[in-house]
Amino acid sequence: MTYRGFIGDLTMIYELYYWPGISRGRGEFVRLALEDAGAKYVDIALLPEAEGGGVPALERFLDGEDIERPPFAPPFLRAGRQLIGQTANILFFLGGRLNLAPRDAASKLWTHQLQLTLSDFIVEIHDTHHPLGGDLYYEEQKRAAKRRAKDFLANRLPKFLGYFERVVQRNPAGGPGMVGARITYVDLSMAQVVAGLRYAFPLSSRKVLRACPRLRALHNEVFARSRIKRYLDSGRRVAFNNDDIFRRYPELDE
Amino acid sequence: MTYRGFIGDLTMIYELYYWPGISRGRGEFVRLALEDAGAKYVDIALLPEAEGGGVPALERFLDGEDIERPPFAPPFLRAGRQLIGQTANILFFLGGRLNLAPRDAASKLWTHQLQLTLSDFIVEIHDTHHPLGGDLYYEEQKRAAKRRAKDFLANRLPKFLGYFERVVQRNPAGGPGMVGARITYVDLSMAQVVAGLRYAFPLSSRKVLRACPRLRALHNEVFARSRIKRYLDSGRRVAFNNDDIFRRYPELDE
Repeated sequence: MTYRGFIGDLTMIYELYYWPGISRGRGEFVRLALEDAGAKYVDIALLPEAEGGGVPALERFLDGEDIERPPFAPPFLRAGRQLIGQTANILFFLGGRLNLAPRDAASKLWTHQLQLTLSDFIVEIHDTHHPLGGDLYYEEQKRAAKRRAKDFLANRLPKFLGYFERVVQRNPAGGPGMVGARITYVDLSMAQVVAGLRYAFPLSSRKVLRACPRLRALHNEVFARSRIKRYLDSGRRVAFNNDDIFRRYPELDE
Repeated sequence: MTYRGFIGDLTMIYELYYWPGISRGRGEFVRLALEDAGAKYVDIALLPEAEGGGVPALERFLDGEDIERPPFAPPFLRAGRQLIGQTANILFFLGGRLNLAPRDAASKLWTHQLQLTLSDFIVEIHDTHHPLGGDLYYEEQKRAAKRRAKDFLANRLPKFLGYFERVVQRNPAGGPGMVGARITYVDLSMAQVVAGLRYAFPLSSRKVLRACPRLRALHNEVFARSRIKRYLDSGRRVAFNNDDIFRRYPELDE
């Protein structure tokens, strides 16, 4: 479980495990970090089953009885012999190695804290369309979704975005990101959330983001980075869609 | 932001910030770690306002314009000059210092991963009684709560508990906890969740826990630890109640 001489090493080939299909879910936050760093990685489930890919590759780790430290759910990452689950935990692990995190211990913890707050935000974004749970389709819980989205847009959305805007504003390095003078993994995730909110709630997010000039600038900064642009142009980036975390149901965006 | 000679030091006085009142919420997971380690700490909001306590002490950090790294919400912890938010992040920070975490890097990350999975579980437990959001009382969202609780008890509760049971089972050290031969902070949190589930869903949790002998034993192990027992007997531990994460509404436990 040790990596000799492996600090900041970009020669390792990471294996990312996330469901295949058009839902890119939480896997996308990990992809953005790997892409931005120019890390070598394989999106395992996108390989054909005959080459060890597809859903069976994921189930092997989720359900295999010989897995000593099984993840609860995708995404998870294999780095050599280490298997790491939970999006924020994966990014914490990758941060130092990919040069996408600050170096001092207190700032590392602060960056992780912001990522965990973003994780909470993402759960609430998801739950606007599935407040009653995952065993019902959206169409079966539309009324509850309207009620939940109303609270989310009125109270939670401005509260979360206002918080992250303040964090950029108070960054003593002056931005453009939340921690230090350089972009970190949490900035990549934040930009993805801004993009997702604009897809899901075009009206409400525009209104709230009007008061968040720093987050708008951060979004633009991230999506203008050369490796991120290359990723967006590669055809590998899947567009936002209604099988995913961020969904556009106009009736919820009122 | 540095702590000279402060690794594993128990002489520091930690400051825990959590809302006063009968809801002990996520603060309780931090308290259990501090209590079990015999750490010195002050539960700041329980002090009188005249002595720097009460709600204003929390608001000072949540809303103060001079706070460079503000937490999004309680609980947060002050350790010297460092301010740390997010329950799982606080426990990650405290783990090594309080001797409640394994020592190797991969196991530290694995323990944290389990705590993050437990955090996800806790959100879902909470949302059984508030599926439509925090701006409505339970009584105003009772029907939605019944629907959400039904899915939770049928699908999510057995899935989460079955997962953690397997983790203990596969621990090569043979338990009683999830990682290594000694109790870690995630075991303390797990025991608290088992206790909370028994309070909130006495019927359903008994049924599901029947298949989880290791989690039942872990719960007993934790609550038999001498410092935890002393905490429970101290009068400082607040009993489970319906202003908290775990709530007993018999109509949801069917």
